[in-house]
Amino acid sequence: MLDKLIAGITPLDDGAMSAARARQDMLTKPQGSLGRLEMLSIQIAGITGQAHPSVSRKAIITMAGDHGVVAEGVSAYPQEVTPQMVYNFLRGGAAINVLARHVGARVVVVDMGVAADMPAHPQLVNKKIGYGTGNITRGPAMSRADAVKAILAGRDVLEQEIALGLDIVGTGDMGIGNTTPSAAIAAALTGSPVAEIVGRGTGVDEAGLERKRLAVERALDVNQPDPMDGLDILAKVGGFEIAGLAGVVLAASARHIPVVVDGYISTAAAMIAVTLAPQCRSYLIAAHRSQERGHRVMLQWMGLEPLLDMDMRLGEGTGAALGISIADAACKILNEMATFSEAGVSEKPE
Amino acid sequence: MLDKLIAGITPLDDGAMSAARARQDMLTKPQGSLGRLEMLSIQIAGITGQAHPSVSRKAIITMAGDHGVVAEGVSAYPQEVTPQMVYNFLRGGAAINVLARHVGARVVVVDMGVAADMPAHPQLVNKKIGYGTGNITRGPAMSRADAVKAILAGRDVLEQEIALGLDIVGTGDMGIGNTTPSAAIAAALTGSPVAEIVGRGTGVDEAGLERKRLAVERALDVNQPDPMDGLDILAKVGGFEIAGLAGVVLAASARHIPVVVDGYISTAAAMIAVTLAPQCRSYLIAAHRSQERGHRVMLQWMGLEPLLDMDMRLGEGTGAALGISIADAACKILNEMATFSEAGVSEKPE
Repeated sequence: MLDKLIAGITPLDDGAMSAARARQDMLTKPQGSLGRLEMLSIQIAGITGQAHPSVSRKAIITMAGDHGVVAEGVSAYPQEVTPQMVYNFLRGGAAINVLARHVGARVVVVDMGVAADMPAHPQLVNKKIGYGTGNITRGPAMSRADAVKAILAGRDVLEQEIALGLDIVGTGDMGIGNTTPSAAIAAALTGSPVAEIVGRGTGVDEAGLERKRLAVERALDVNQPDPMDGLDILAKVGGFEIAGLAGVVLAASARHIPVVVDGYISTAAAMIAVTLAPQCRSYLIAAHRSQERGHRVMLQWMGLEPLLDMDMRLGEGTGAALGISIADAACKILNEMATFSEAGVSEKPE
Repeated sequence: MLDKLIAGITPLDDGAMSAARARQDMLTKPQGSLGRLEMLSIQIAGITGQAHPSVSRKAIITMAGDHGVVAEGVSAYPQEVTPQMVYNFLRGGAAINVLARHVGARVVVVDMGVAADMPAHPQLVNKKIGYGTGNITRGPAMSRADAVKAILAGRDVLEQEIALGLDIVGTGDMGIGNTTPSAAIAAALTGSPVAEIVGRGTGVDEAGLERKRLAVERALDVNQPDPMDGLDILAKVGGFEIAGLAGVVLAASARHIPVVVDGYISTAAAMIAVTLAPQCRSYLIAAHRSQERGHRVMLQWMGLEPLLDMDMRLGEGTGAALGISIADAACKILNEMATFSEAGVSEKPE
């Protein structure tokens, strides 16, 4: 099933990209003067196969999961905050709700593996793989089978959203402790020193930061993840929400839907997806550079230049929401601007 | 009249800023995790004097003017493009129209000094001071009296928009050749070498770039603007739309309305405003860092860190439109997010 998903991801559509590029050059502005908005519109044309793409139907998929590694004292907040924040999302009071409303996106809240029984809620998507992962400083986060199951659950969530109508998707996460497995994934894949990857997350103090560094080092030492095997890394040092988001990235790529990647945790998930299916990289739009130490290294490894650099470090999909609005603006430029000939504006003499 | 306008600009409201800061710290997110969105909401609280500011009524004021210095071959486009683009704005086909619609802002198009008779149009605001400025390589752009008149015209445009309902304003410009006077203003104020300030504008070639550098050097040499006297610089090497935008900045600051400054030309206008009234600096939000060489130097001189860096260099207010949307998002965070106690979410243990 996973192999089939991966095999379904094709290169971008060159014809649509050429047509979009040609149109950008006819619009009433100096060629290239809208910079990254122009590039973005051309990328989205290639992703969607549409010379005039529209991304009006927007969703942010925010996946929640818990992490056994919190036993090592790696987070500033108690684990109970994960389910509490899930209900905050469902009531519309969290930052992601505000920013998603601002950009006209719906928020899809998914329980991938919260360590609590979650009272049913009509808006809560239940894909729980387990009650939190194993403590990665002592063994694997999950079995390889559960890693596959979580990826396919992510795919199913994305497919369900496509059925409801979807032109662009943003990724988001919630999970106390989840910067630690994300750092372990980043260290395993980039080979960069752990100290350059690990940051303060929700705000640990100096001692907590040291505990995080040690936890990541121990996780890598104990589990020995294979840097060539995305599934191995995911199972050994990942997380349920990270796996689900990797599934969202793979499935969106296979279905020609642009993916706006949020910050640190979402980028770790996208790195797993790219390791499994390198061709999905072209489908990704990096929303922002997180304030979290190490995100820069991750984006460089991915070869992605983020749209925004706002010193944000919240997750949930908050950066992705702002990025989706910029992607929407880029498409509207392509679709709504007048050409030189339509507007009767003189072109630059050759 | 100008002195009275300047005297009306007061410092930001500390009480509103403290209240906004305190509320940010109670919202369901780690303190500071929304980075610049938090800072922006606090600044806007200080500007408006409202602890819970809302910036739903948005306008971008796009001012057009022509420049005698185009006779020196400093632009890639012919001067007739200025009025042509004004009508493109009025028909809604330009980039600024698309982006303003995207962010829910109205576009106010003002003729400050286009070198053509402009057929009347119900949406065109006529504040024409002259048919283009004088050639600054041979003498002043305008008289000191006209500089004052243009600033006050900008103030009148802003006051008219306040009467219609205005919470936040973006600046924008149109004027073939107007990166040249903007560069002259920046060079006069920052003292940086002309070669570091002058860029390719709408896209001049290497020879055109050299002509621009020489034109700016000659303009400074011939006119000897006094770097301590904003009005002197404006009259000698500025432009009608630049003067109008300086008036918008001053008047918005006096009326406690946040000003989102667009790129190169708008920043030159804001530099004039800040030279006339240093206290208006706190009312400014730099939307983006333009791709145009020298904008970085101008922002540094202003002490402003731009929100976006998208390789844009179009003007019209296009960067300001995107910046206004981010400012709106920042205010919504403050107004719409749940607090820890409202949401029943555990706080970080001390």
